[in-house]
Amino acid sequence: VNRRYLDDFQPGDRIPSEGEYEMTLERIRDYATEYDPQPIHLDAAAAVQEMFGGIVASGWHSLSVTMQLIVEARPFGGSPIVGVAIENLRFLRPVRTGDVLRAEAEVLSVRRSASRPEQGFLVLRVVTVRQGDEPVLTQDWTLLVPRRPQ
Amino acid sequence: VNRRYLDDFQPGDRIPSEGEYEMTLERIRDYATEYDPQPIHLDAAAAVQEMFGGIVASGWHSLSVTMQLIVEARPFGGSPIVGVAIENLRFLRPVRTGDVLRAEAEVLSVRRSASRPEQGFLVLRVVTVRQGDEPVLTQDWTLLVPRRPQ
Repeated sequence: VNRRYLDDFQPGDRIPSEGEYEMTLERIRDYATEYDPQPIHLDAAAAVQEMFGGIVASGWHSLSVTMQLIVEARPFGGSPIVGVAIENLRFLRPVRTGDVLRAEAEVLSVRRSASRPEQGFLVLRVVTVRQGDEPVLTQDWTLLVPRRPQ
Repeated sequence: VNRRYLDDFQPGDRIPSEGEYEMTLERIRDYATEYDPQPIHLDAAAAVQEMFGGIVASGWHSLSVTMQLIVEARPFGGSPIVGVAIENLRFLRPVRTGDVLRAEAEVLSVRRSASRPEQGFLVLRVVTVRQGDEPVLTQDWTLLVPRRPQ
């Protein structure tokens, strides 16, 4: 397994998603049916009466898609992405049918663990955009990342 | 549509989930296949070599299930749950095959909007537990909630 370690990152490093993900009506409905069964995600006639004026994707769907985009970028090679905390998560705009999502992570900080020298914490700012440049979500992930074995 | 408004909540109010959700191996795999295709969620032989020593659910899967549990509790009656921010999200423990999740939200604060008198912000602390009492996730949601029409 080809792994990348905490030692391989510096503040300012960028990890762009390689793929993109189209929020089709079918995908919005499939996610919402299982995890967020509200009319604003499932029922066009009801959704038009509510705040966004039509069907929007579940925020948790857009967050799940963001994870898929970052996972596919394999920031740690074969090592898993292990999250410990999320801060500063903002839903900036509703995501609608046909929006095409991409994501990019930027390293904010790299911190060695004081108590466990074999690991540390990486803080990433993750921004999700639609149609290439319009931000819809932003969040800061704190990940637990192994250090390179000595 | 029977709606609950910002005015109907006070700090300390609790919204428990009515149902529960079992994290079966099939559900863990179905979610991970689409949104978090890492071996620690999909491949028992690979997962045993990693930090958690076996298959664990995607953190985003547990978060999605938490939303499902709170949606089913219908905290605002027929009105949608509209999130604007999340803070203090912590992944406290890994979620494993067979864990049964429940969730509870507690109102931390109720704030009227200074600029828009027809709405305001509700901050909920949402805690997800397994097997009835062991916390696995905690997070603070800021929701946009309409005020009762005068």
